[in-house]
Amino acid sequence: MRRNSFRDIKSELERRISRRVWEPGETMPGEEALAAEFGAARATVNRALQELARSGLIERKRKSGTRVALHPVREARFAIPLVRTEIEASGSAYEYRLLKRAVEHAPVWLQERFGLPAGAPALHVRCLHLADERPYQYEDRWINLAAVPAAGSEDFETASPNEWLVANAPFSRAQFSFGAARAGSEEARALDLDPGEAVFVAERATWIAERAITYVRMVHPPDHRVVTWI
Amino acid sequence: MRRNSFRDIKSELERRISRRVWEPGETMPGEEALAAEFGAARATVNRALQELARSGLIERKRKSGTRVALHPVREARFAIPLVRTEIEASGSAYEYRLLKRAVEHAPVWLQERFGLPAGAPALHVRCLHLADERPYQYEDRWINLAAVPAAGSEDFETASPNEWLVANAPFSRAQFSFGAARAGSEEARALDLDPGEAVFVAERATWIAERAITYVRMVHPPDHRVVTWI
Repeated sequence: MRRNSFRDIKSELERRISRRVWEPGETMPGEEALAAEFGAARATVNRALQELARSGLIERKRKSGTRVALHPVREARFAIPLVRTEIEASGSAYEYRLLKRAVEHAPVWLQERFGLPAGAPALHVRCLHLADERPYQYEDRWINLAAVPAAGSEDFETASPNEWLVANAPFSRAQFSFGAARAGSEEARALDLDPGEAVFVAERATWIAERAITYVRMVHPPDHRVVTWI
Repeated sequence: MRRNSFRDIKSELERRISRRVWEPGETMPGEEALAAEFGAARATVNRALQELARSGLIERKRKSGTRVALHPVREARFAIPLVRTEIEASGSAYEYRLLKRAVEHAPVWLQERFGLPAGAPALHVRCLHLADERPYQYEDRWINLAAVPAAGSEDFETASPNEWLVANAPFSRAQFSFGAARAGSEEARALDLDPGEAVFVAERATWIAERAITYVRMVHPPDHRVVTWI
């Protein structure tokens, strides 16, 4: 007879939870009892329970045992890869084009967002990331030169500020946002869209030790999807 | 003299990492050495290191000690609350309106996505979630009645399928996606937008024990942002 794998056990526990053999909030049989029932090692049962706990379906407490979650809190996790890595991982050829690079005074909205003094120097970079020669992402980035002065000596002609910052400006705190917008005229031109087309916008701002590093707006064509599984 | 808090220690370690006092990949001093340097308890240093590790800035290994991360892998985590909870948490009044409820044959795209037989019964629900009387989310949902037959007896007149499913149909696996689109005519009417306006679209599909439970498309007005911090 084939022994129950942790996957078999996980499926059966899922089935019982979905059929309410055990109600939400109810304490489930212990690891030992389940191991005996399934004719499996405790480690095998433990692995199944671990996966169910990670997916939020059950709650494990050292003292009170395992319960079916009453109000499972769900979380979607999105990896934040380099855009080059993201494109190459999908099997496409990556290409990078620098559109603009200039040292400017931080605009007022950036001063306010990052707590910078008036006239603070910021590096403004606009560039395009292509997948198989099709525009994939238009990047509009500001780098706080007071926090990352070395960025001022980079020309970003052949490698993107994304790559340079990942290698040179570690961050400890970041804000991410996703949204939709109508493409502005410059974004539309870069992405080869009609102005006003719906675009997917990801934004990111990073800090280290209370100092702002960079703010970036990443604009994608309307067919772009950010997908994750739990 | 004020003792260094775990926040002070964390800030100072962040500063050293950003200034490359310790290079990426380099092993950092141990917990004990840091505790001695900062005149703090080991537990305090441990808490600072834990937070830095969680943010991806350092890597802690039991045997080889703590290193500055070489290629920090970043992850953005988005909580998936009930839409009612999300609206109420922002201080707005929540309102729910059912627009459609019908048992239909699963359309071909849903059959294919969920591996359902032709003619499989599915509950099709369209509804609107409002915040302070303004449309917040248009929900277009399909529920697989073979997996969740009890949903067929719910009228969803006063509580949304979102609430009912969270309480009655636990899932073990889910796919999430975010994207942008132009509002279709029905979406535009429900959300009080011009047709073709850019909307933010979140999609979710859930399974338990290999059986598909539900697919939902959630459409938001263009000012909607999904935001998270790490």
